[in-house]
Amino acid sequence: MEIIIMKELLEANDKLAKENRAYFAARHILAVNIMGAPGSGKTTLISALAQELEDIRIGVIEGDIESSIDADNLERQGIRAVQINTCGECHLDAHVIKKGADYLDMSNAIVFIENVGNLICPAEFDLGEAVRLLAASVPEGDDKPFKYVPMFSYIDAVALTKCDLKEAVGFDSKNFLKGLRTLSQAPVFETSLKTGAQVRGVNAVANYLRQKYEELGKL
Amino acid sequence: MEIIIMKELLEANDKLAKENRAYFAARHILAVNIMGAPGSGKTTLISALAQELEDIRIGVIEGDIESSIDADNLERQGIRAVQINTCGECHLDAHVIKKGADYLDMSNAIVFIENVGNLICPAEFDLGEAVRLLAASVPEGDDKPFKYVPMFSYIDAVALTKCDLKEAVGFDSKNFLKGLRTLSQAPVFETSLKTGAQVRGVNAVANYLRQKYEELGKL
Repeated sequence: MEIIIMKELLEANDKLAKENRAYFAARHILAVNIMGAPGSGKTTLISALAQELEDIRIGVIEGDIESSIDADNLERQGIRAVQINTCGECHLDAHVIKKGADYLDMSNAIVFIENVGNLICPAEFDLGEAVRLLAASVPEGDDKPFKYVPMFSYIDAVALTKCDLKEAVGFDSKNFLKGLRTLSQAPVFETSLKTGAQVRGVNAVANYLRQKYEELGKL
Repeated sequence: MEIIIMKELLEANDKLAKENRAYFAARHILAVNIMGAPGSGKTTLISALAQELEDIRIGVIEGDIESSIDADNLERQGIRAVQINTCGECHLDAHVIKKGADYLDMSNAIVFIENVGNLICPAEFDLGEAVRLLAASVPEGDDKPFKYVPMFSYIDAVALTKCDLKEAVGFDSKNFLKGLRTLSQAPVFETSLKTGAQVRGVNAVANYLRQKYEELGKL
Protein backbone atom coordinates (compact mmCIF):
# COMPACT_ATOMS: atom_id res chain seq x y z
CA MET A 1 0.00 0.00 0.00
CA GLU A 2 2.65 2.46 1.07
CA ILE A 3 4.79 1.54 -1.93
CA ILE A 4 2.00 2.13 -4.45
CA ILE A 5 1.24 5.57 -3.04
CA MET A 6 4.93 6.47 -3.01
CA LYS A 7 5.21 5.35 -6.63
CA GLU A 8 2.25 7.53 -7.66
CA LEU A 9 3.70 10.43 -5.75
CA LEU A 10 7.09 10.06 -7.42
CA GLU A 11 5.51 9.71 -10.87
CA ALA A 12 3.50 12.89 -10.33
CA ASN A 13 6.69 14.63 -9.19
CA ASP A 14 8.66 13.41 -12.22
CA LYS A 15 6.00 14.82 -14.54
CA LEU A 16 6.19 18.23 -12.86
CA ALA A 17 10.00 18.08 -12.88
CA LYS A 18 9.91 17.61 -16.64
CA GLU A 19 7.73 20.72 -16.93
CA ASN A 20 10.15 22.67 -14.70
CA ARG A 21 13.05 21.55 -16.89
CA ALA A 22 11.28 22.93 -19.97
CA TYR A 23 10.44 26.16 -18.12
CA PHE A 24 14.07 26.69 -17.08
CA ALA A 25 15.35 25.89 -20.59
CA ALA A 26 12.91 28.31 -22.24
CA ARG A 27 14.08 31.09 -19.90
CA HIS A 28 17.76 30.26 -20.23
CA ILE A 29 18.03 29.44 -16.55
CA LEU A 30 20.61 27.07 -15.09
CA ALA A 31 18.86 25.51 -12.10
CA VAL A 32 21.26 24.11 -9.52
CA ASN A 33 19.87 21.84 -6.80
CA ILE A 34 22.15 22.16 -3.77
CA MET A 35 21.76 19.31 -1.33
CA GLY A 36 23.56 18.34 1.86
CA ALA A 37 23.23 17.43 5.52
CA PRO A 38 22.14 20.03 8.10
CA GLY A 39 24.97 22.50 8.64
CA SER A 40 27.00 21.32 5.66
CA GLY A 41 27.36 24.93 4.52
CA LYS A 42 24.82 25.14 1.70
CA THR A 43 23.79 28.77 2.30
CA THR A 44 27.38 29.90 2.79
CA LEU A 45 28.30 28.16 -0.47
CA ILE A 46 25.46 29.87 -2.37
CA SER A 47 26.43 33.22 -0.94
CA ALA A 48 30.09 32.76 -1.96
CA LEU A 49 29.11 31.52 -5.43
CA ALA A 50 26.82 34.52 -5.95
CA GLN A 51 29.76 36.84 -5.21
CA GLU A 52 32.03 34.90 -7.56
CA LEU A 53 29.41 34.90 -10.35
CA GLU A 54 28.51 38.58 -10.01
CA ASP A 55 28.36 39.07 -13.79
CA ILE A 56 25.46 36.59 -14.02
CA ARG A 57 21.97 37.19 -12.61
CA ILE A 58 21.46 35.01 -9.52
CA GLY A 59 18.27 33.84 -7.84
CA VAL A 60 17.78 31.52 -4.89
CA ILE A 61 14.92 29.25 -3.91
CA GLU A 62 15.49 28.50 -0.23
CA GLY A 63 14.01 25.37 1.29
CA ASP A 64 13.70 24.81 5.05
CA ILE A 65 11.20 22.92 7.14
CA GLU A 66 10.76 26.12 9.15
CA SER A 67 12.18 29.67 9.52
CA SER A 68 13.45 32.13 6.93
CA ILE A 69 16.93 32.58 8.41
CA ASP A 70 18.73 31.58 5.20
CA ALA A 71 16.65 33.62 2.76
CA ASP A 72 16.89 36.64 5.09
CA ASN A 73 20.69 36.29 5.15
CA LEU A 74 20.87 36.10 1.37
CA GLU A 75 18.56 39.06 0.83
CA ARG A 76 20.66 41.09 3.25
CA GLN A 77 23.51 40.46 0.79
CA GLY A 78 21.37 41.72 -2.06
CA ILE A 79 20.65 38.27 -3.51
CA ARG A 80 17.14 37.75 -4.87
CA ALA A 81 15.69 34.91 -2.81
CA VAL A 82 12.40 33.25 -2.01
CA GLN A 83 11.87 31.09 1.06
CA ILE A 84 9.87 27.88 0.90
CA ASN A 85 8.85 26.36 4.22
CA THR A 86 8.02 22.70 3.82
CA CYS A 87 6.21 22.61 7.22
CA GLY A 88 7.86 19.40 8.32
CA GLU A 89 8.44 17.80 4.90
CA CYS A 90 11.96 16.46 4.56
CA HIS A 91 12.61 17.50 0.95
CA LEU A 92 11.61 19.95 -1.76
CA ASP A 93 9.54 18.70 -4.66
CA ALA A 94 8.97 19.83 -8.24
CA HIS A 95 5.63 21.45 -7.38
CA VAL A 96 7.04 23.92 -4.86
CA ILE A 97 10.00 24.68 -7.15
CA LYS A 98 7.58 25.83 -9.85
CA LYS A 99 5.97 28.17 -7.30
CA GLY A 100 9.36 29.49 -6.25
CA ALA A 101 10.46 30.01 -9.85
CA ASP A 102 7.20 31.83 -10.65
CA TYR A 103 7.81 34.14 -7.70
CA LEU A 104 11.40 34.88 -8.74
CA ASP A 105 10.19 35.40 -12.34
CA MET A 106 13.72 35.54 -13.78
CA SER A 107 15.40 34.68 -17.08
CA ASN A 108 19.04 34.47 -18.21
CA ALA A 109 20.09 33.50 -14.73
CA ILE A 110 21.52 30.87 -12.46
CA VAL A 111 18.89 29.82 -9.93
CA PHE A 112 20.21 28.02 -6.87
CA ILE A 113 17.75 25.76 -5.12
CA GLU A 114 18.82 25.12 -1.55
CA ASN A 115 17.20 21.86 -0.58
CA VAL A 116 16.21 20.89 2.96
CA GLY A 117 19.18 19.77 5.08
CA ASN A 118 18.94 16.01 4.58
CA LEU A 119 21.30 13.44 3.02
CA ILE A 120 18.54 10.98 2.21
CA CYS A 121 15.09 12.04 1.03
CA PRO A 122 15.97 14.83 -1.48
CA ALA A 123 17.70 12.22 -3.69
CA GLU A 124 14.27 10.80 -4.57
CA PHE A 125 12.74 14.01 -5.88
CA ASP A 126 13.79 15.40 -9.25
CA LEU A 127 13.14 19.14 -9.23
CA GLY A 128 13.81 19.79 -12.91
CA GLU A 129 17.30 21.06 -12.14
CA ALA A 130 20.24 20.92 -14.58
CA VAL A 131 22.94 20.38 -11.97
CA ARG A 132 22.89 18.49 -8.68
CA LEU A 133 25.57 19.81 -6.35
CA LEU A 134 26.25 18.20 -3.00
CA ALA A 135 27.68 20.22 -0.14
CA ALA A 136 29.50 17.58 1.92
CA SER A 137 31.27 18.98 4.96
CA VAL A 138 34.56 17.66 6.30
CA PRO A 139 33.34 17.32 9.93
CA GLU A 140 30.63 14.90 8.76
CA GLY A 141 33.41 12.40 8.17
CA ASP A 142 35.02 10.59 5.25
CA ASP A 143 32.74 7.55 5.50
CA LYS A 144 29.58 9.26 4.29
CA PRO A 145 29.70 7.97 0.66
CA PHE A 146 29.67 4.42 2.03
CA LYS A 147 26.55 5.10 4.09
CA TYR A 148 24.45 7.53 2.06
CA VAL A 149 24.63 5.64 -1.21
CA PRO A 150 21.50 6.99 -2.96
CA MET A 151 22.58 10.62 -2.46
CA PHE A 152 26.22 10.10 -3.48
CA SER A 153 24.99 8.24 -6.60
CA TYR A 154 22.52 11.00 -7.47
CA ILE A 155 24.79 14.04 -7.66
CA ASP A 156 26.79 15.65 -10.50
CA ALA A 157 29.43 17.40 -8.39
CA VAL A 158 30.61 17.68 -4.81
CA ALA A 159 31.68 20.80 -2.96
CA LEU A 160 33.70 19.48 -0.04
CA THR A 161 33.16 22.26 2.51
CA LYS A 162 34.99 23.29 5.72
CA CYS A 163 38.30 21.88 4.43
CA ASP A 164 40.09 24.10 6.97
CA LEU A 165 38.95 21.52 9.56
CA LYS A 166 40.52 18.52 7.80
CA GLU A 167 43.38 18.15 10.21
CA ALA A 168 41.33 18.94 13.31
CA VAL A 169 38.84 16.15 12.58
CA GLY A 170 41.24 13.69 10.91
CA PHE A 171 39.40 13.62 7.58
CA ASP A 172 40.83 10.98 5.20
CA SER A 173 40.35 12.35 1.66
CA LYS A 174 41.44 9.05 0.09
CA ASN A 175 38.74 7.12 1.92
CA PHE A 176 36.11 9.70 0.93
CA LEU A 177 37.13 9.43 -2.73
CA LYS A 178 37.29 5.66 -2.56
CA GLY A 179 33.67 5.58 -1.42
CA LEU A 180 32.53 8.19 -3.91
CA ARG A 181 34.24 6.60 -6.92
CA THR A 182 32.37 3.32 -6.50
CA LEU A 183 29.18 5.34 -7.12
CA SER A 184 29.97 8.38 -9.21
CA GLN A 185 32.57 10.22 -11.29
CA ALA A 186 31.37 13.56 -9.88
CA PRO A 187 34.19 16.12 -9.61
CA VAL A 188 35.10 17.12 -6.05
CA PHE A 189 35.89 20.76 -5.31
CA GLU A 190 37.62 21.42 -2.01
CA THR A 191 36.41 24.61 -0.37
CA SER A 192 36.83 26.57 2.81
CA LEU A 193 34.38 29.43 3.14
CA LYS A 194 34.54 30.52 6.76
CA THR A 195 33.57 34.14 7.23
CA GLY A 196 36.58 36.25 8.07
CA ALA A 197 39.06 33.55 7.09
CA GLN A 198 40.61 33.13 3.66
CA VAL A 199 37.94 31.90 1.27
CA ARG A 200 39.33 29.04 -0.77
CA GLY A 201 38.12 26.88 -3.64
CA VAL A 202 34.86 28.61 -4.49
CA ASN A 203 36.23 29.89 -7.81
CA ALA A 204 36.56 26.32 -9.11
CA VAL A 205 32.91 25.56 -8.29
CA ALA A 206 31.89 28.87 -9.87
CA ASN A 207 33.84 28.08 -13.05
CA TYR A 208 32.20 24.67 -13.25
CA LEU A 209 28.76 26.30 -13.04
CA ARG A 210 29.69 29.14 -15.38
CA GLN A 211 30.65 26.59 -18.02
CA LYS A 212 27.34 24.76 -17.56
CA TYR A 213 25.51 28.08 -17.85
CA GLU A 214 27.35 29.04 -21.03
CA GLU A 215 26.63 25.63 -22.52
CA LEU A 216 22.90 26.35 -22.14
CA GLY A 217 23.13 28.91 -24.91
CA LYS A 218 24.71 26.39 -27.28
CA LEU A 219 22.01 23.73 -26.94
CA MET B 1 -4.62 10.66 0.16
CA GLU B 2 -1.00 10.94 1.15
CA ILE B 3 -2.00 12.37 4.50
CA ILE B 4 -4.45 9.58 5.25
CA ILE B 5 -1.90 6.90 4.46
CA MET B 6 0.73 8.67 6.55
CA LYS B 7 -1.74 8.85 9.43
CA GLU B 8 -2.45 5.11 9.21
CA LEU B 9 1.24 4.38 9.05
CA LEU B 10 1.96 6.52 12.11
CA GLU B 11 -0.93 4.98 14.04
CA ALA B 12 0.33 1.48 13.27
CA ASN B 13 3.81 2.58 14.37
CA ASP B 14 2.51 4.06 17.63
CA LYS B 15 0.75 0.79 18.45
CA LEU B 16 3.98 -1.18 17.93
CA ALA B 17 5.95 1.43 19.89
CA LYS B 18 3.64 0.87 22.85
CA GLU B 19 4.33 -2.88 22.62
CA ASN B 20 8.08 -2.21 22.50
CA ARG B 21 7.79 0.00 25.56
CA ALA B 22 6.10 -2.82 27.47
CA TYR B 23 8.72 -5.29 26.23
CA PHE B 24 11.61 -3.08 27.40
CA ALA B 25 9.94 -2.44 30.78
CA ALA B 26 9.33 -6.16 31.38
CA ARG B 27 13.00 -6.88 30.70
CA HIS B 28 14.30 -3.95 32.72
CA ILE B 29 15.85 -2.36 29.63
CA LEU B 30 16.46 1.38 29.27
CA ALA B 31 16.05 2.02 25.53
CA VAL B 32 17.80 5.18 24.36
CA ASN B 33 16.97 6.52 20.89
CA ILE B 34 20.02 8.44 19.67
CA MET B 35 19.23 10.79 16.82
CA GLY B 36 21.25 13.37 14.91
CA ALA B 37 22.38 14.63 11.53
CA PRO B 38 24.83 12.60 9.41
CA GLY B 39 28.27 12.80 10.99
CA SER B 40 27.05 14.32 14.25
CA GLY B 41 29.00 11.68 16.17
CA LYS B 42 26.28 9.24 17.21
CA THR B 43 28.41 6.09 16.99
CA THR B 44 31.36 7.72 18.72
CA LEU B 45 29.03 8.85 21.51
CA ILE B 46 27.59 5.34 21.95
CA SER B 47 31.06 3.88 22.02
CA ALA B 48 32.22 6.37 24.68
CA LEU B 49 29.06 5.85 26.74
CA ALA B 50 29.50 2.08 26.64
CA GLN B 51 33.01 2.49 28.09
CA GLU B 52 31.74 4.85 30.77
CA LEU B 53 28.87 2.52 31.70
CA GLU B 54 30.96 -0.65 31.79
CA ASP B 55 29.21 -1.94 34.91
CA ILE B 56 25.89 -2.10 33.04
CA ARG B 57 25.12 -4.52 30.20
CA ILE B 58 25.03 -2.58 26.90
CA GLY B 59 23.41 -3.45 23.57
CA VAL B 60 23.17 -1.43 20.38
CA ILE B 61 20.62 -1.45 17.56
CA GLU B 62 22.37 0.29 14.67
CA GLY B 63 20.33 1.93 11.95
CA ASP B 64 21.74 2.94 8.56
CA ILE B 65 20.24 3.13 5.12
CA GLU B 66 23.14 0.97 3.94
CA SER B 67 26.42 -0.57 5.18
CA SER B 68 27.37 -2.11 8.52
CA ILE B 69 30.35 0.17 9.23
CA ASP B 70 29.00 1.37 12.58
CA ALA B 71 27.91 -2.01 13.96
CA ASP B 72 31.24 -3.51 12.85
CA ASN B 73 33.12 -0.77 14.70
CA LEU B 74 31.11 -1.33 17.86
CA GLU B 75 31.49 -5.11 17.77
CA ARG B 76 35.23 -4.67 17.33
CA GLN B 77 35.10 -2.89 20.70
CA GLY B 78 33.26 -5.84 22.21
CA ILE B 79 29.87 -4.13 22.26
CA ARG B 80 26.89 -6.35 21.42
CA ALA B 81 25.33 -4.79 18.32
CA VAL B 82 22.86 -5.57 15.57
CA GLN B 83 22.76 -3.67 12.29
CA ILE B 84 19.49 -2.70 10.67
CA ASN B 85 19.68 -1.52 7.07
CA THR B 86 16.63 0.49 6.14
CA CYS B 87 17.36 0.12 2.38
CA GLY B 88 16.72 3.76 1.62
CA GLU B 89 14.23 4.55 4.38
CA CYS B 90 15.10 7.74 6.21
CA HIS B 91 14.23 6.62 9.75
CA LEU B 92 13.87 3.60 12.00
CA ASP B 93 10.40 2.49 13.03
CA ALA B 94 8.96 0.51 15.93
CA HIS B 95 8.63 -2.64 13.82
CA VAL B 96 12.35 -2.96 13.04
CA ILE B 97 13.26 -2.08 16.63
CA LYS B 98 11.29 -5.09 17.86
CA LYS B 99 13.26 -7.27 15.43
CA GLY B 100 16.54 -5.79 16.63
CA ALA B 101 15.59 -6.24 20.27
CA ASP B 102 14.59 -9.85 19.65
CA TYR B 103 17.96 -10.48 18.04
CA LEU B 104 19.85 -8.90 20.96
CA ASP B 105 17.66 -10.86 23.40
CA MET B 106 18.93 -8.97 26.47
CA SER B 107 17.57 -8.00 29.86
CA ASN B 108 18.80 -5.69 32.65
CA ALA B 109 20.57 -3.54 30.13
CA ILE B 110 20.81 -0.18 28.42
CA VAL B 111 20.02 -0.59 24.72
CA PHE B 112 21.17 2.25 22.50
CA ILE B 113 19.26 2.67 19.28
CA GLU B 114 21.30 4.61 16.75
CA ASN B 115 18.80 6.14 14.38
CA VAL B 116 19.46 6.98 10.72
CA GLY B 117 21.47 10.19 10.28
CA ASN B 118 18.62 12.64 9.74
CA LEU B 119 17.40 15.69 11.69
CA ILE B 120 13.85 15.49 10.37
CA CYS B 121 12.06 12.20 9.77
CA PRO B 122 13.05 10.21 12.91
CA ALA B 123 11.12 12.74 15.06
CA GLU B 124 7.86 11.33 13.67
CA PHE B 125 8.43 7.72 14.68
CA ASP B 126 8.16 6.65 18.29
CA LEU B 127 10.27 3.52 18.77
CA GLY B 128 9.13 2.68 22.29
CA GLU B 129 12.27 4.20 23.79
CA ALA B 130 12.50 5.68 27.29
CA VAL B 131 15.00 8.43 26.43
CA ARG B 132 15.45 10.50 23.27
CA LEU B 133 19.00 11.80 23.06
CA LEU B 134 20.06 14.15 20.30
CA ALA B 135 23.67 14.27 19.13
CA ALA B 136 24.02 17.83 17.81
CA SER B 137 27.49 18.64 16.55
CA VAL B 138 29.12 22.05 16.88
CA PRO B 139 30.13 22.32 13.18
CA GLU B 140 26.46 22.02 12.18
CA GLY B 141 26.04 25.52 13.57
CA ASP B 142 24.20 27.23 16.40
CA ASP B 143 21.08 28.00 14.32
CA LYS B 144 19.85 24.43 14.05
CA PRO B 145 17.19 24.62 16.82
CA PHE B 146 15.55 27.47 14.88
CA LYS B 147 15.37 25.39 11.70
CA TYR B 148 14.75 21.81 12.82
CA VAL B 149 11.91 22.57 15.19
CA PRO B 150 10.16 19.17 15.29
CA MET B 151 13.38 17.36 16.25
CA PHE B 152 14.50 19.87 18.87
CA SER B 153 10.98 19.73 20.37
CA TYR B 154 10.98 15.91 20.42
CA ILE B 155 14.10 15.17 22.45
CA ASP B 156 14.76 14.69 26.19
CA ALA B 157 18.45 15.61 26.22
CA VAL B 158 21.16 16.99 23.95
CA ALA B 159 24.76 15.83 23.68
CA LEU B 160 26.52 18.75 22.05
CA THR B 161 29.38 16.96 20.28
CA LYS B 162 32.73 18.12 18.83
CA CYS B 163 32.95 21.02 21.31
CA ASP B 164 36.71 21.16 20.65
CA LEU B 165 35.74 22.86 17.35
CA LYS B 166 33.72 25.66 18.97
CA GLU B 167 36.30 28.33 18.40
CA ALA B 168 37.33 27.10 14.95
CA VAL B 169 33.76 27.34 13.62
CA GLY B 170 32.59 30.31 15.71
CA PHE B 171 29.79 28.42 17.48
CA ASP B 172 27.60 30.73 19.59
CA SER B 173 26.37 28.65 22.56
CA LYS B 174 23.99 31.39 23.67
CA ASN B 175 22.21 31.44 20.33
CA PHE B 176 21.94 27.63 20.34
CA LEU B 177 20.41 27.67 23.82
CA LYS B 178 18.11 30.55 22.93
CA GLY B 179 16.68 28.48 20.06
CA LEU B 180 16.48 25.30 22.11
CA ARG B 181 14.79 26.90 25.13
CA THR B 182 11.84 28.15 23.07
CA LEU B 183 11.10 24.46 22.37
CA SER B 184 12.43 22.32 25.17
CA GLN B 185 13.96 22.23 28.64
CA ALA B 186 16.22 19.34 27.60
CA PRO B 187 19.57 19.40 29.43
CA VAL B 188 22.58 20.05 27.20
CA PHE B 189 25.79 18.09 27.81
CA GLU B 190 28.89 19.50 26.16
CA THR B 191 31.18 16.74 24.88
CA SER B 192 34.36 16.32 22.91
CA LEU B 193 35.06 12.70 22.01
CA LYS B 194 37.78 12.84 19.36
CA THR B 195 39.89 9.70 19.26
CA GLY B 196 43.34 10.34 20.62
CA ALA B 197 42.36 13.65 22.16
CA GLN B 198 41.15 14.20 25.70
CA VAL B 199 37.63 12.82 25.98
CA ARG B 200 35.45 15.36 27.73
CA GLY B 201 31.89 15.50 28.97
CA VAL B 202 30.79 11.93 28.34
CA ASN B 203 30.63 11.18 32.07
CA ALA B 204 27.79 13.67 32.53
CA VAL B 205 25.75 12.01 29.77
CA ALA B 206 26.53 8.61 31.27
CA ASN B 207 25.40 9.76 34.73
CA TYR B 208 22.16 11.10 33.28
CA LEU B 209 21.47 7.71 31.67
CA ARG B 210 22.63 5.75 34.71
CA GLN B 211 20.09 7.62 36.82
CA LYS B 212 17.32 6.90 34.31
CA TYR B 213 18.36 3.24 34.33
CA GLU B 214 18.32 3.05 38.12
CA GLU B 215 14.90 4.72 38.21
CA LEU B 216 13.55 1.83 36.10
CA GLY B 217 13.90 -0.49 39.11
CA LYS B 218 11.90 1.84 41.30
CA LEU B 219 8.84 2.07 39.06
